[in-house]
Amino acid sequence: MLFEKNDKILFIGDSISDYDRARPVGEGLFNAWGTSYVSCVGATLCSAYPELNLRVVNMGIGGNQVRDLQKRWRTDVIDLHPDWVSVLIGINDVWRQFDSPQMPETHVSPEAFEEGYAQLIDQTLPAVKGMILMSPYFMEPNRQDPMRARMDEYGAIVRRLAEKNGLLFVDLQAAWDELFRYMHPCNIAWDRIHPNQIGCMHIARQFLKAVGADR
Amino acid sequence: MLFEKNDKILFIGDSISDYDRARPVGEGLFNAWGTSYVSCVGATLCSAYPELNLRVVNMGIGGNQVRDLQKRWRTDVIDLHPDWVSVLIGINDVWRQFDSPQMPETHVSPEAFEEGYAQLIDQTLPAVKGMILMSPYFMEPNRQDPMRARMDEYGAIVRRLAEKNGLLFVDLQAAWDELFRYMHPCNIAWDRIHPNQIGCMHIARQFLKAVGADR
Amino acid sequence: MLFEKNDKILFIGDSISDYDRARPVGEGLFNAWGTSYVSCVGATLCSAYPELNLRVVNMGIGGNQVRDLQKRWRTDVIDLHPDWVSVLIGINDVWRQFDSPQMPETHVSPEAFEEGYAQLIDQTLPAVKGMILMSPYFMEPNRQDPMRARMDEYGAIVRRLAEKNGLLFVDLQAAWDELFRYMHPCNIAWDRIHPNQIGCMHIARQFLKAVGADR
Amino acid sequence: MLFEKNDKILFIGDSISDYDRARPVGEGLFNAWGTSYVSCVGATLCSAYPELNLRVVNMGIGGNQVRDLQKRWRTDVIDLHPDWVSVLIGINDVWRQFDSPQMPETHVSPEAFEEGYAQLIDQTLPAVKGMILMSPYFMEPNRQDPMRARMDEYGAIVRRLAEKNGLLFVDLQAAWDELFRYMHPCNIAWDRIHPNQIGCMHIARQFLKAVGADR
Amino acid sequence: MLFEKNDKILFIGDSISDYDRARPVGEGLFNAWGTSYVSCVGATLCSAYPELNLRVVNMGIGGNQVRDLQKRWRTDVIDLHPDWVSVLIGINDVWRQFDSPQMPETHVSPEAFEEGYAQLIDQTLPAVKGMILMSPYFMEPNRQDPMRARMDEYGAIVRRLAEKNGLLFVDLQAAWDELFRYMHPCNIAWDRIHPNQIGCMHIARQFLKAVGADR
Amino acid sequence: MLFEKNDKILFIGDSISDYDRARPVGEGLFNAWGTSYVSCVGATLCSAYPELNLRVVNMGIGGNQVRDLQKRWRTDVIDLHPDWVSVLIGINDVWRQFDSPQMPETHVSPEAFEEGYAQLIDQTLPAVKGMILMSPYFMEPNRQDPMRARMDEYGAIVRRLAEKNGLLFVDLQAAWDELFRYMHPCNIAWDRIHPNQIGCMHIARQFLKAVGADR
Amino acid sequence: MLFEKNDKILFIGDSISDYDRARPVGEGLFNAWGTSYVSCVGATLCSAYPELNLRVVNMGIGGNQVRDLQKRWRTDVIDLHPDWVSVLIGINDVWRQFDSPQMPETHVSPEAFEEGYAQLIDQTLPAVKGMILMSPYFMEPNRQDPMRARMDEYGAIVRRLAEKNGLLFVDLQAAWDELFRYMHPCNIAWDRIHPNQIGCMHIARQFLKAVGADR
Amino acid sequence: MLFEKNDKILFIGDSISDYDRARPVGEGLFNAWGTSYVSCVGATLCSAYPELNLRVVNMGIGGNQVRDLQKRWRTDVIDLHPDWVSVLIGINDVWRQFDSPQMPETHVSPEAFEEGYAQLIDQTLPAVKGMILMSPYFMEPNRQDPMRARMDEYGAIVRRLAEKNGLLFVDLQAAWDELFRYMHPCNIAWDRIHPNQIGCMHIARQFLKAVGADR
Repeated sequence: MLFEKNDKILFIGDSISDYDRARPVGEGLFNAWGTSYVSCVGATLCSAYPELNLRVVNMGIGGNQVRDLQKRWRTDVIDLHPDWVSVLIGINDVWRQFDSPQMPETHVSPEAFEEGYAQLIDQTLPAVKGMILMSPYFMEPNRQDPMRARMDEYGAIVRRLAEKNGLLFVDLQAAWDELFRYMHPCNIAWDRIHPNQIGCMHIARQFLKAVGADR
Repeated sequence: MLFEKNDKILFIGDSISDYDRARPVGEGLFNAWGTSYVSCVGATLCSAYPELNLRVVNMGIGGNQVRDLQKRWRTDVIDLHPDWVSVLIGINDVWRQFDSPQMPETHVSPEAFEEGYAQLIDQTLPAVKGMILMSPYFMEPNRQDPMRARMDEYGAIVRRLAEKNGLLFVDLQAAWDELFRYMHPCNIAWDRIHPNQIGCMHIARQFLKAVGADR
Repeated sequence: MLFEKNDKILFIGDSISDYDRARPVGEGLFNAWGTSYVSCVGATLCSAYPELNLRVVNMGIGGNQVRDLQKRWRTDVIDLHPDWVSVLIGINDVWRQFDSPQMPETHVSPEAFEEGYAQLIDQTLPAVKGMILMSPYFMEPNRQDPMRARMDEYGAIVRRLAEKNGLLFVDLQAAWDELFRYMHPCNIAWDRIHPNQIGCMHIARQFLKAVGADR
Repeated sequence: MLFEKNDKILFIGDSISDYDRARPVGEGLFNAWGTSYVSCVGATLCSAYPELNLRVVNMGIGGNQVRDLQKRWRTDVIDLHPDWVSVLIGINDVWRQFDSPQMPETHVSPEAFEEGYAQLIDQTLPAVKGMILMSPYFMEPNRQDPMRARMDEYGAIVRRLAEKNGLLFVDLQAAWDELFRYMHPCNIAWDRIHPNQIGCMHIARQFLKAVGADR
Repeated sequence: MLFEKNDKILFIGDSISDYDRARPVGEGLFNAWGTSYVSCVGATLCSAYPELNLRVVNMGIGGNQVRDLQKRWRTDVIDLHPDWVSVLIGINDVWRQFDSPQMPETHVSPEAFEEGYAQLIDQTLPAVKGMILMSPYFMEPNRQDPMRARMDEYGAIVRRLAEKNGLLFVDLQAAWDELFRYMHPCNIAWDRIHPNQIGCMHIARQFLKAVGADR
Repeated sequence: MLFEKNDKILFIGDSISDYDRARPVGEGLFNAWGTSYVSCVGATLCSAYPELNLRVVNMGIGGNQVRDLQKRWRTDVIDLHPDWVSVLIGINDVWRQFDSPQMPETHVSPEAFEEGYAQLIDQTLPAVKGMILMSPYFMEPNRQDPMRARMDEYGAIVRRLAEKNGLLFVDLQAAWDELFRYMHPCNIAWDRIHPNQIGCMHIARQFLKAVGADR
Repeated sequence: MLFEKNDKILFIGDSISDYDRARPVGEGLFNAWGTSYVSCVGATLCSAYPELNLRVVNMGIGGNQVRDLQKRWRTDVIDLHPDWVSVLIGINDVWRQFDSPQMPETHVSPEAFEEGYAQLIDQTLPAVKGMILMSPYFMEPNRQDPMRARMDEYGAIVRRLAEKNGLLFVDLQAAWDELFRYMHPCNIAWDRIHPNQIGCMHIARQFLKAVGADR
Repeated sequence: MLFEKNDKILFIGDSISDYDRARPVGEGLFNAWGTSYVSCVGATLCSAYPELNLRVVNMGIGGNQVRDLQKRWRTDVIDLHPDWVSVLIGINDVWRQFDSPQMPETHVSPEAFEEGYAQLIDQTLPAVKGMILMSPYFMEPNRQDPMRARMDEYGAIVRRLAEKNGLLFVDLQAAWDELFRYMHPCNIAWDRIHPNQIGCMHIARQFLKAVGADR
């Protein structure tokens, strides 16, 4: 298993991570993790590895794009001194291109996405044991769908960044695709983005598998 | 134009019609029509044909399937003595097959759908000037998507029933398909079912075109 | 049709435009246009001219008079870089003279109204493709009513400003008068100012006709 | 002064009387009279004639027409054993004809109004010391306005019924007309029906004058 | 009658005046006067003297003592340029001495009360046509009750200040005493301070009598 | 001490007992006793006599008069099988005579009060170890006040009934009178009826003294 | 793995299962499972075994004891035709003995518990593929604590019933004891009963292990 | 009895004192003391010693640790000029070590606790008549429980500080232990920290005994 005794694992991202987590810091009493995949991961790690005394923090904020993470990276990631940082970003960078096509200022181009994401990694690596990058996704089985195709582009960027930096990469898009062999996307998320409890657990399970938490 | 002076036009269906209409009868003061396509249609008719003194009633109820309409058809349609009845039903009959595959009691088969729908028509025609049938739809451009394919089946049933009974048929699925040439579905509805204001107006415009309201 | 591909059309005014639009900017997801005539216009344009990818923004604020627009014109109009600006102002400038006669500081004289309005136009014209001016109105059929008479004065000012600057003028007062041939004002607005859904659509239809949107 | 020691005076009518009175009976602790003219009358009588120990009850219900009063007259008037009954009804009987012209079942014809009203009086007179009838009104100065003209018809019916039965008649329409010599209707009621505090007091003052309460 | 055409009359005081008046200024649309005696006075004046176009403003704030008025006198009285100022203060100056005996910092001594009140008058008189002073009161019939006796002291101070400055004095304590010949205080106010609607009207009637408003 | 191991003590009365106790039965988890003197008594007994395992139940209901107790005595007292019943009733029987003098149907005469109270006792005594009667009270130091004088009459009735039946009598009126030597009633209750926390504890202390709970 | 394609698994119990599940049936859209261990189980099964199309239903109700299950077993279990029934009951049967010692009617004796539980099993077994029994628990590490000792008695009853009927038994008490080697109970539940997210996941993991769901 | 006429007694601490007290200062009208032991103490003192006119102030804030008291000691204690200060702190200093073991920054070591507490005492003694120190506690009967053992350490620190400074010490832990001879902790507090009404009264009774309030 990747994590060691007393490690602090920080999750950051958009609404998929947020799901009503506590402010300003998503950690501690009263289910401060919210109800996203982060709480599934945190609860599983604490239940399965109680001897490790792991510390899980959820810093997701709904609607965030990579450039929002850049603005708050110092206070919301670096200053919290995590041992590990898990990132799930990019969905809103793409989504706005399709649900708000008239508003180009809400779009993030692949170039800006890659550059911004790379800066986050560069800022973080010197200070942590490692990072886990999760692919943005669109729960659309049809790869010809233009938003799916676009999301795949961004997913490929994240994969490339992970490979370049030797980081763990969790391919959520592939995980959904596997699931869609048995069920329609609307069994997981009406809007093909925000997973229900099944979907949150599915993300968590991909993460846990990637970090070798197999108890 | 189809409608004549003092005609009463009743719309019935599911959440697509409902959109917070007044209870028990969606008619009268305080925007009782709610905010669905029904209010777009009603407002346009009253603005464009003020001399006709038309009466528009919204009887949609969220979540309804054809069998729910059957149960309330007497009180919610016949007893209100409409001159025209417009029906938009079938979406939930199909949707549950995909978002709740484990719960077959929530599914309505094509046969049950057709039979139930036909009974509604038979009960109504003797008492009205006419009916307008709107196709159920799924805002999914990919015709190979299983839910889209399934919805097309139900749409075909509605079209067949309209033709058989000589009724106006409004092909909403075709109207969305046309729109998707220029925009992604998520610009109209995040869940591909419940239209935003653009989508409500788009439905209303198909209806108005069908009834010849071209002022 | 007046508008061209990718044009941004900004609507500004008082509560008649506002109707619960999003803050700070009335544009984007979650029906940010509110429920006024602006959403009827925006939804119709996007439904009928999907290929134009038009951008509609609602910047109305309830209770505004011309002097309120002057204070926020820089941030709320100019800085948003619209291609077209549609203005509907003047109702509160007059109304306060009649519902708050004891409070002269809430009244705006015709001179101040004209001067303020002219300044708005002068500031805007260099930066846009054009402006559309809508007349303030009072849904009072009796032209001898003192508030109607007063409102007609202000409407005449707006018409004069439109003509002087070669701008489109939408005569809403005339549109209501036409409607009142068939119905009493209280069928449109209990307070003779704030239109119900029929009235909102009626305003929208006058606007659409004026800009040549006839699909 | 009309009223005598320990007299119970019951007010009945529509929203103009109701104004959030207590249910089921509008009498007693915690400002149970609501905030309509009834509380102005009740408070003035109790302040000015404390030695009379008068009892004031408000039984108005918003939206009521004469036929609604008929249905609840037994429980809401007769069974409460008032010494005096004051009636203000008819506004909704007329208003619906103009704000809901498409819905004839919401209209009350002059004949039905007169007959219903006459029955109320006949049922009541044997059991009380007297009745006070207040004219329905529309705060429209223009007597040519069709709703004003219609309301005047109903006001005339009430006056006729009062005269025929030797009852006190309070001409509220005339009282508003007098007031409109100095102010516009919108200074009293935005919808020309529901008075603000000035209007409530104005109704109360007409009533008090009529019953000779001049302290 | 004391007031002349277009006069502005400002009422200031504590919760007895406040009763949910609008902030920051208790004047204008939507019953901004609240529901205290101020609205009874305002409504009566506007109903009875419509030709005078009087302007009534309510600036009461719950819990205020004379020293609170001093702090806000500039902004809440002088800067609003009233023609007449009516003051009802002193109840909380005394009440705290009895309901919070342990907290001397919440008490206002007679000397501080008189001095503070005198300063308010001195600041105001040069700028207005006149002031009306209302006595603080305690709805306790028993003059031997220590709080009643104390309140009478403060009432005497107000009377003395009125006489010294030639101002109208409204003796509310005497008005309650008169009323208590016929009813127990708990018929007016459960806490012997905050009047119900009867009590508010009673205060208003004393004021109106004092200013000669006898229509 | 009066109570023995496992005794169940039931308190019944009006709002003075109620103070937001749980429904339908005021006993058990989540502070079901509410916040009246009953919780002060219950908490003190359980803290001071933990070995007795006493059971305290609060069955007060706001606004109750003796006749309301009669209606619910079977279900709310007898059926709960208490060992001891403590009654505090009579305040509303008197209060209504003074705060609602116009409404004689809300008054309870001394005769009706005594007869009703006696019936409660007769019904209860055979089934319990004993009863404690608490005097109704009015926190008015002036015995000449008519409501205080009237309340004293009812207090005397309760004392007489206690003596006649050999029951414990708790003279709350006397306890307040003692307290008023040092403080004004408004330090205990603004309305002279509903005690604040000091007053609730004061009632509880009288009760505890009467039953000999002196730990 | 225990479950087969299309199996329906029903969970029943008290608040530990309930955690805000949907009413009347805890199944379907909008996270109807609530947030207890049931949702952790359901989500994991659907994520890990998508090809099985399993159906999970949560019928827990807060505060339930075994006798409450008996009353609703017909409608809430049998009539829903589950293939498997998982039961977690007994906590409240014991807890009331300690948090409400004065109220014996809220206690359930071991005999009544065993008899009631056995009846549930007897009623169910003929109609299902199998049952899973989970031990009631108290998150108290000290086995000498009287409530822990008592709970262990009830846990032993459940184990005995499972063995007697050849059913799966999930020993939650043992699972907590294992966890308490590494953390204090208050890291899982402040009241030692209601688990936080870690605790819910821990219960779920015991269940999943027991049924052989090891993907 | 310790307290003298007009003494001001200030209570400070964490949620055990707070229980919804008024902000910013927990003193005065409207039950500003909240519902903790502080109100039991205050109410008892005012009821039993009315001639002393004592002043009780509650300054508890939920979640506070000793270091939080240090930050607000100047404004919340010294500046209020109490004659006596009663402190109940330390529970959260220990609790976080057990419910949030991963978050060491939320823990307060015994050394830091003692040093911080000593500073509070040193700052205060010169300005007051005396201080009362109450032991932090954990309602855990088992002294081997690690959190109980840890809390006992902190309790010993408080006792030592009291002795060293000659202050009254109230041993709440001992008082709970005594109570647990007769009842389980969950009869007082589900989470073993926050007492119900019985527990609040129990704390209050220890305090009152310590200060010699035995009336």
